Amino acid sequence: MLELHRVDAEQYSHLAKLPVTIVLDNVRSEMNVGSVFRTADAFLIEHICLCGITAVPPRPEIHKTALGAEDTVPWSHHPTALDAITGLRERGYRICAVEQVHGSISLEQFQPKPDEKLAIILGNEVKGVAQDAVDASDCCIEIPQFGTKHSLNIANTAAIVMWQLIQARL
Amino acid sequence: MLELHRVDAEQYSHLAKLPVTIVLDNVRSEMNVGSVFRTADAFLIEHICLCGITAVPPRPEIHKTALGAEDTVPWSHHPTALDAITGLRERGYRICAVEQVHGSISLEQFQPKPDEKLAIILGNEVKGVAQDAVDASDCCIEIPQFGTKHSLNIANTAAIVMWQLIQARL
Repeated sequence: MLELHRVDAEQYSHLAKLPVTIVLDNVRSEMNVGSVFRTADAFLIEHICLCGITAVPPRPEIHKTALGAEDTVPWSHHPTALDAITGLRERGYRICAVEQVHGSISLEQFQPKPDEKLAIILGNEVKGVAQDAVDASDCCIEIPQFGTKHSLNIANTAAIVMWQLIQARL
Repeated sequence: MLELHRVDAEQYSHLAKLPVTIVLDNVRSEMNVGSVFRTADAFLIEHICLCGITAVPPRPEIHKTALGAEDTVPWSHHPTALDAITGLRERGYRICAVEQVHGSISLEQFQPKPDEKLAIILGNEVKGVAQDAVDASDCCIEIPQFGTKHSLNIANTAAIVMWQLIQARL
């Protein structure tokens, strides 16, 4: 096994992060929330906004899939995704909803500028991103899919998008 | 909403697939297995080998996360990952374990040839890919990680790798 260069929580808090905030809009499954935390820790995501009914730590089901990453990745709760978006826009973020809509950008063609501050909105497992949050977004991103389901699990979607964003900076 | 170009199971069976087989080696969680099926359906993966203790359909917990993709993506069961690997190598597959080891290829640098047949081995949630399967692989692939956990959920790992492979052909 490689020496893993694993950092502890104190060291992690001082690492430079991607200027990327993940916004979870009414995510129902606590296991999905925890899974997003775990991946966010791996890929140096700066912050997670938990909105609406999205559960917040500490919760046993979040911990089960976050494995402690809920303590290393900063988070905040907001009544609605729109509230979170409003605050992020004021701080200069480009707001990008992950949603299958007309005019969406296919993920492989999404090329943010280096150091551009991004808010990535991910929606409810069934309903997707709320319409008002889609309307308030600067763009929509879509992961191209070719199968019978035409939807991906939200934690997998988040992982793919986060990977794409950090890969661009490796 | 876009017209989704969603195909039914019969149409899907006739679509050209990626020459990529996913090998799950002793995956403990049926929800992870189902999640891999769902993503495999989206990204045109040709086959999944379920090895060792990895549960096989039909199972309620697989169905809960596969959402029916366990019926569209062909699969087979093998006593061990090594058994699956042996058969795949005989059929000309390049065997790639996803594992953090010395000499692994960082995923963003992994560039298979167009039409190269690939078997991607993913291991147990705790123990990873069995050592004999790693030893029998042609290469190891690693997703670079920078956080405190230094491991990703296996379904998220599978999603990232499958996305990377289909992205290269978009």
